Amino acid sequence: MRIRIEQIEVLPGYPRLNTEKILKLIEKAKSDKIECVIFPEMSIPGYLIGDEWERNSFINECEKYGKLIEKSSTEIIVIFGNIAIDRNKINEDGRVRKYNALFTAENGSFIKSKKTGYPYTIKTLMPNYREFDDNRHFFDPRKLAYELDLKIDELITPIETEHFKIGGILCEDGWDADYNLSPIKILADKEAELIINISSSPYTLNKNDKRNRVFSDQADRYNLPLIYVNNIGIQDNGKTVYTFDGYSSVYNNSGKIIGSIEPFKEESLTVDIKKVDKNIRAIIPEDNIEMQYNAIQYGTKKFMSRYGLKKIVVGVSGGIDSAVVAALYSLILPPENLLLVSMPGPYTSDTTYNLSEKLSENLKASFMTIPIQPSVNLTSLQLGEPIINYSDKSNSIKLDVTDFVLENIQARDRSSRLLAGVAASFGGVFTCNANKSEMTVGYSTLYGDLGGYLATIADLWKGEVYELARFLNESIFKKEIIPQGILDIPPSAELSSEQNVDEGKGDPFYYPYHDSLFRSWVERWERATPEDILEWYMDDTLEKNIGYDEKVKDLFKNHEDFISDLERWWNLYQGMGIAKRIQAPPVLAVKRRAFGFDHREAQLGARYSERYFELKGEILSLTPNPEGLLIV
Amino acid sequence: MRIRIEQIEVLPGYPRLNTEKILKLIEKAKSDKIECVIFPEMSIPGYLIGDEWERNSFINECEKYGKLIEKSSTEIIVIFGNIAIDRNKINEDGRVRKYNALFTAENGSFIKSKKTGYPYTIKTLMPNYREFDDNRHFFDPRKLAYELDLKIDELITPIETEHFKIGGILCEDGWDADYNLSPIKILADKEAELIINISSSPYTLNKNDKRNRVFSDQADRYNLPLIYVNNIGIQDNGKTVYTFDGYSSVYNNSGKIIGSIEPFKEESLTVDIKKVDKNIRAIIPEDNIEMQYNAIQYGTKKFMSRYGLKKIVVGVSGGIDSAVVAALYSLILPPENLLLVSMPGPYTSDTTYNLSEKLSENLKASFMTIPIQPSVNLTSLQLGEPIINYSDKSNSIKLDVTDFVLENIQARDRSSRLLAGVAASFGGVFTCNANKSEMTVGYSTLYGDLGGYLATIADLWKGEVYELARFLNESIFKKEIIPQGILDIPPSAELSSEQNVDEGKGDPFYYPYHDSLFRSWVERWERATPEDILEWYMDDTLEKNIGYDEKVKDLFKNHEDFISDLERWWNLYQGMGIAKRIQAPPVLAVKRRAFGFDHREAQLGARYSERYFELKGEILSLTPNPEGLLIV
Repeated sequence: MRIRIEQIEVLPGYPRLNTEKILKLIEKAKSDKIECVIFPEMSIPGYLIGDEWERNSFINECEKYGKLIEKSSTEIIVIFGNIAIDRNKINEDGRVRKYNALFTAENGSFIKSKKTGYPYTIKTLMPNYREFDDNRHFFDPRKLAYELDLKIDELITPIETEHFKIGGILCEDGWDADYNLSPIKILADKEAELIINISSSPYTLNKNDKRNRVFSDQADRYNLPLIYVNNIGIQDNGKTVYTFDGYSSVYNNSGKIIGSIEPFKEESLTVDIKKVDKNIRAIIPEDNIEMQYNAIQYGTKKFMSRYGLKKIVVGVSGGIDSAVVAALYSLILPPENLLLVSMPGPYTSDTTYNLSEKLSENLKASFMTIPIQPSVNLTSLQLGEPIINYSDKSNSIKLDVTDFVLENIQARDRSSRLLAGVAASFGGVFTCNANKSEMTVGYSTLYGDLGGYLATIADLWKGEVYELARFLNESIFKKEIIPQGILDIPPSAELSSEQNVDEGKGDPFYYPYHDSLFRSWVERWERATPEDILEWYMDDTLEKNIGYDEKVKDLFKNHEDFISDLERWWNLYQGMGIAKRIQAPPVLAVKRRAFGFDHREAQLGARYSERYFELKGEILSLTPNPEGLLIV
Repeated sequence: MRIRIEQIEVLPGYPRLNTEKILKLIEKAKSDKIECVIFPEMSIPGYLIGDEWERNSFINECEKYGKLIEKSSTEIIVIFGNIAIDRNKINEDGRVRKYNALFTAENGSFIKSKKTGYPYTIKTLMPNYREFDDNRHFFDPRKLAYELDLKIDELITPIETEHFKIGGILCEDGWDADYNLSPIKILADKEAELIINISSSPYTLNKNDKRNRVFSDQADRYNLPLIYVNNIGIQDNGKTVYTFDGYSSVYNNSGKIIGSIEPFKEESLTVDIKKVDKNIRAIIPEDNIEMQYNAIQYGTKKFMSRYGLKKIVVGVSGGIDSAVVAALYSLILPPENLLLVSMPGPYTSDTTYNLSEKLSENLKASFMTIPIQPSVNLTSLQLGEPIINYSDKSNSIKLDVTDFVLENIQARDRSSRLLAGVAASFGGVFTCNANKSEMTVGYSTLYGDLGGYLATIADLWKGEVYELARFLNESIFKKEIIPQGILDIPPSAELSSEQNVDEGKGDPFYYPYHDSLFRSWVERWERATPEDILEWYMDDTLEKNIGYDEKVKDLFKNHEDFISDLERWWNLYQGMGIAKRIQAPPVLAVKRRAFGFDHREAQLGARYSERYFELKGEILSLTPNPEGLLIV
């Protein structure tokens, strides 16, 4: 059978536009004598669309467009994903019954399942982790099996087309390792001749590697060719923006990749299942800083074009984060649409000011300088001068504008007073340059450097931001566009005399140790807590467990120093860090745990287990004191 | 059997503190000769705790504390909710198997289920709508049934104590109307003698009414007494903060409430099941503005005490929203800890300035005035004066600081420059005074009036804010504390000459029509879209469907005017409104659909269905034009 897989960009929420594209590609496939054309999961509605599923006018429209595709299936088999509706039944939220479904159309009609009677195949395994909420919207076929008084195994049957018996599955159905049933195994047992997995699977670091291993193994184990079709584009859940890399691939029955489509490209791939076409390239992109760069560039560009954004303002400090962000946008925008703004304050050094000027010259971007000192002085006066009388005149106070208060005043002055105004006047938006290390512990000012329309690099650890800077200079620009000085100075917020870069002072982090530590709290699947950190510290396995190459003990004077550092950051991560992330901009995700909708957080405060106090007591030879845990 | 129900405040994330409280109450119950004491669902860990469930050190600790309670169950039966762990199995996310479970301890041991062998009863119905994410963390017993090769009905069995056969269920198990199985019915069929529903159920408007109807009906239908135990306190999911009202109740076997505990009170209730105690009060609070006021006061107070906040700054404009927020805090804080700040700008009228001064006098709060004109002028100059050269010197521009840009500069100057600095200097935080109507359509400035530590009244529609103001004056203060002038002037942002309150001008809303319209988009279970609005408009059922008491046609000159208003707000609700809500403060929820984690939104842009364009064409006698829907 001559099969074409279409790695299309799905526009979430725009069923008409997606359908128009699909219909054109079906016509093209027919004229190319293709026998079966396959589109991704949810290729009409999009997949990550929040609670849009609750709007009946929306899902009705998706269903209607599905029927247009059904009619177009003359002389060709068309397989695609869409929302399926059963108006005679309800979901457990009382709304109309909805399934995440694979539709197969042949001779102008959908092929019905003999078991359910439905003209579609239902997704069996429903992911409910990370950014996925399948059970919130789509009815679980295991519940349907109960309703029909069948076993779930009975519901899963191959689709009998005129050519092949197709084992049609959706995304998670192919990732069965943690489930107590395997749709692919059931389909293989029922003599499916070909597995087709339609997916809507966002890019995350190292997922493609794993996918290749898993799918290749399945094809080999069941001795069946396996076709994987994924969409490209961006989709979001409000707080977190995902890129979809596609990377659709075809595996032969011994598990070898016999063809794949480049990530982030809207392309098709034609294969003849039986007689393998040897000319097809197998693309295996290396999953490293380059792939993360691709995802960030792609996602940013798509996000901007979706909202019609053509002009970008970046506040540049002379530091690494803003330099990398500015460099990324210089690759997307014409120079006149990229405006870099330096906002020197009382603690800005000539060193960093000159570096940001040099950066803007190298990027050929427009550049303006607005000092914050006049406004900071005004604010300090306006806050500190007035005498505030108590209502009963029993007392009067003056506000105490401390140095710490002044640090944050500087940061907010830059973003909320200046950058937001500059961006609006320029006809654009301003960026958030936060990185993941700082986001983790809330080392940033709300309405200050944590403001912006999109947090472009907020899923990169600090060390990766440096890596990306070097990659940009070496492999993209092929010259020193980000000045070496920016890579060489210590990272510093320059908000006080304690952060003087010329004296080698800066932010209170020991990189890469803190990156590794924070990663263990945020990204480990079995998430580490201070209890685990102390266990490993005592076992001498801390470095191995958090992936830190040097010796942790070399960083700290003694055990107390190590523990007080640990508690300082844990308190911030679980305390103000959460409060700040709640009001942070959307994060562009590249990791398997991004802040926002993936990493769901409640404001519980920083807590430690009893075991933690025991371990701490042991290490410091103290009597454990579990009191005072509660911040109430 | 003499039973005591304990309506405790559960501190989410603090298992040790919750356990200490429970152990004390068990000792007290023993000394009071109680035979069975019952605590709420998840009374050790808390329930809405985000992804905290993924931390093994946390859940291990919860399990350990559960065993302390087990041991304490000598001479008494103890029933409570906790996380249950099966370390030999996994969840579908690959993490350790977890259940949301009810534990029954008797004679120092948990009673085991004969079917599962587990020393606990598993929650059967798992809510996955609104703020609930049960399937994300807890294993569904319907999947367990498949694993054990049983039917789910077989897994559900009464708990056989020495006294009664208890039908133990958890929260959603009692709300079975939309499910294809009913745990209560199964338990009744298996001869349970008493239903005990332990819950962790947040307050939302009208839920208590519905709960009474549902539970009373169940008790009556199955001829069984039913005990409902819910916790109090606050719990959050980051973006949304929930109050738990408790309102634990006992229904006799004909469905009559024979006892209940007041909402938001940590109290116990003792009943003798068999011989009904006639002296027990039945509390049925009326669910209206008073109950919403109770929830808001309770939630705000708890939120502050959880984070140790003792001082509050409110920016007061002389308008209704800030006045109500200030009045609410005056009931929580001593006057010296409440600081009202007026920040008059170029368009602030004497009328509103005087009203805010009068308000602060009435509230006996501290008051300060900081004009924004000097900073707005400075910003305007700093933005508009510099000449920006293109990098290639081909052109140069000046930024265009338009009137619209200046409006937002004023709003950000107030919140990010002044209020944030004042709050930090004062040793407190500042409030967000947004209401739900404005939140819906993003009628607010990011980093401006949309800043703040908590959006206290953001789940109240504008009309309800007025209702609350009148309620506060009449029923709480019992005099005119919120000056009548604030209720009488038109709502206005006073950011331009177009919003002059003395000329009767203000915000571009027709209340209460827009409240009703927006409510239909946000709060209707079957969520309305512009398509529905036009259908109803044509049918003449719009008023009935959205709950608006007057005639919509009286508000608009003609059909065009009506439709352009509709599209204006829909575009904002689905466009900038979402972008702003992503970065908005946590919302204190009182409705069954609050912004944040309850109402999950993706940035899809404003879209209209084809049917919408048909209807619009019909109404305006136009040829429908569905082009240009996409904002790309």
